Amino acid sequence: MRDGHGDDLHRYTGIRANFSSNVTQLTSPRALRQHLASCIDCIGSYPEPSAETLAEELATYHGVVPASVLVTNGATEAIYLVAQAWRQRKHYFSPDPTFSEYRDAVRLYGASYEELTDLAPPLLDSGSIYWLCSPNNPTGRSYPRATLEALWRKHPEVTFILDNSYAHFSEAEQPAMAETVQRFPNVLFLTSLTKRYAMPGLRLGYLLAQPLLIEELLSYRQPWSVGALAVEAGRWIVGHRFPDLIDYSLLFAQAHRLKEAIHALPHFEVEPSDTHFFLVHCEHPAIPCGGMLKELLAQRYQLLVRDATNFGYTDRATIRIATQSPEANDLLLFALRELSSLPPQA
Amino acid sequence: MRDGHGDDLHRYTGIRANFSSNVTQLTSPRALRQHLASCIDCIGSYPEPSAETLAEELATYHGVVPASVLVTNGATEAIYLVAQAWRQRKHYFSPDPTFSEYRDAVRLYGASYEELTDLAPPLLDSGSIYWLCSPNNPTGRSYPRATLEALWRKHPEVTFILDNSYAHFSEAEQPAMAETVQRFPNVLFLTSLTKRYAMPGLRLGYLLAQPLLIEELLSYRQPWSVGALAVEAGRWIVGHRFPDLIDYSLLFAQAHRLKEAIHALPHFEVEPSDTHFFLVHCEHPAIPCGGMLKELLAQRYQLLVRDATNFGYTDRATIRIATQSPEANDLLLFALRELSSLPPQA
Repeated sequence: MRDGHGDDLHRYTGIRANFSSNVTQLTSPRALRQHLASCIDCIGSYPEPSAETLAEELATYHGVVPASVLVTNGATEAIYLVAQAWRQRKHYFSPDPTFSEYRDAVRLYGASYEELTDLAPPLLDSGSIYWLCSPNNPTGRSYPRATLEALWRKHPEVTFILDNSYAHFSEAEQPAMAETVQRFPNVLFLTSLTKRYAMPGLRLGYLLAQPLLIEELLSYRQPWSVGALAVEAGRWIVGHRFPDLIDYSLLFAQAHRLKEAIHALPHFEVEPSDTHFFLVHCEHPAIPCGGMLKELLAQRYQLLVRDATNFGYTDRATIRIATQSPEANDLLLFALRELSSLPPQA
Repeated sequence: MRDGHGDDLHRYTGIRANFSSNVTQLTSPRALRQHLASCIDCIGSYPEPSAETLAEELATYHGVVPASVLVTNGATEAIYLVAQAWRQRKHYFSPDPTFSEYRDAVRLYGASYEELTDLAPPLLDSGSIYWLCSPNNPTGRSYPRATLEALWRKHPEVTFILDNSYAHFSEAEQPAMAETVQRFPNVLFLTSLTKRYAMPGLRLGYLLAQPLLIEELLSYRQPWSVGALAVEAGRWIVGHRFPDLIDYSLLFAQAHRLKEAIHALPHFEVEPSDTHFFLVHCEHPAIPCGGMLKELLAQRYQLLVRDATNFGYTDRATIRIATQSPEANDLLLFALRELSSLPPQA
């Protein structure tokens, strides 16, 4: 684990709006949270050692066998399980800047790895692991389905980890999990429920693949890693057939508005994304790095964004922004507009 | 992780009383649980990556520096962290049957280990790790403080892991954490808050030692492993100066009654323990193993106990029982009395 994660809200006081984690506030988690508060007594018993019942329910929902699903303490536990179980294999990372936890986990277990310069190179080591995040964090861009399928088809002897934690936050078409693992036994989905259901504090994710792949991970699990309330939340979500708690039309409308307005500001440039979160590059001479832009927004405007420096954006000031409510977005636009007119030597 | 943990309540329906986990029902967790229900919205944000604030508060409470405390997702994460960080070292296990997770974790990381036949052998490898559980699970017996201190003093080059998760459930004197690590820099306490505060579903534990030992574990941590509600529970506990939610005089009075009454039954023998949980050996010819005794109690009486076979009690029927309410204990006594008078060929 290294420093520099998003949502470091706890380090600041008086923050008025938080754009720093990819969890959106444009959601109505009331019913889910009331349900959890009402069954708080479930913490009085141990959770199932491997969240077996929830795994079965998720499997039924997706139309796969129970042995295809492994429930984890957030997507993070899933990432570390994959890195640990396959530490003897070579690991590839896509050329795009991506979630640093994959690399941290692979390094922790001492596995060899290579950062690709080409998404679909002609050769990959047989038996290797290839990590992909789509929609990708922090860029918010999805790889086209055809591109992914061509890659998976071309390298049947490579295991592809597809982190689709942000699939429901994208306007682009996303590969269906059950259908994909049916057609491509070399694909392992890694997903999170905490972003979609606004509960990152509970820690809940899962892996979905053909049973042979899941089986290789099982012996590395720690018992009871998933808490009883996280299990309850998962069962509520499956029981309600994965309800949409997010107002997607408002979210995407706001995302478009925010991206266009920021892109129109002097010194600011927005990277194209198909999700509600996106990268903003700042070329203002008085703001040389993402850390400074973040601090200016926090100290002067009480707005929290994600410094993207540790995603590899070291040559200019880059931050990641997740769209929030119209009012919060207005505050951010006001602040960035003021910063864009700073004198060169601020 | 292997099969056969306690509290497998989820596998049964209609259970009337649960003696299978070491969590006692003689507790009043109402205020804590109401507090957690009232702050359910904290799940909407990521927890701190390493539960830093709670670690600081625990350190202040114990009178140690913050770098002496590492908060974990239950004691289980702590066990796996120790096994992983020190996988290159040799691991020793005490001669008594003990919590199987230590061994499982050490095996998982491929470390070498030895099961001692003598608690205090004349020689131990320099740089090795020695796991101790006191009060010990499943026996419920504490090692005398003088015995422990002599061991720690004799082997300053060995790191001792002292799991004292059940310290507050014992009538015997227990080593004070801060004072002990001050005097013995080679001792690392591993503890759980979930038993004492009746919240095993939340997963919360911590390690306490001199900073040099804690530091060796830090790079193996996964971020956000401790959920936001577990952190809230921990902060409530520290904020209330570790309140006693358990009626200890009732608990120990009931434990004495239960131990004596079971021990007086034909075919049953209770192993001495200084905690509210204890081992029961059954020598009835119709009940050859712990698994059968457990099933008889579950199927005929709807009472759940812990089969102790996987603690190493394979030669006779052994179960572990944790004292519960007077009414629940009466049910268990009634059931064991009936079983004690089974014909030899039941």
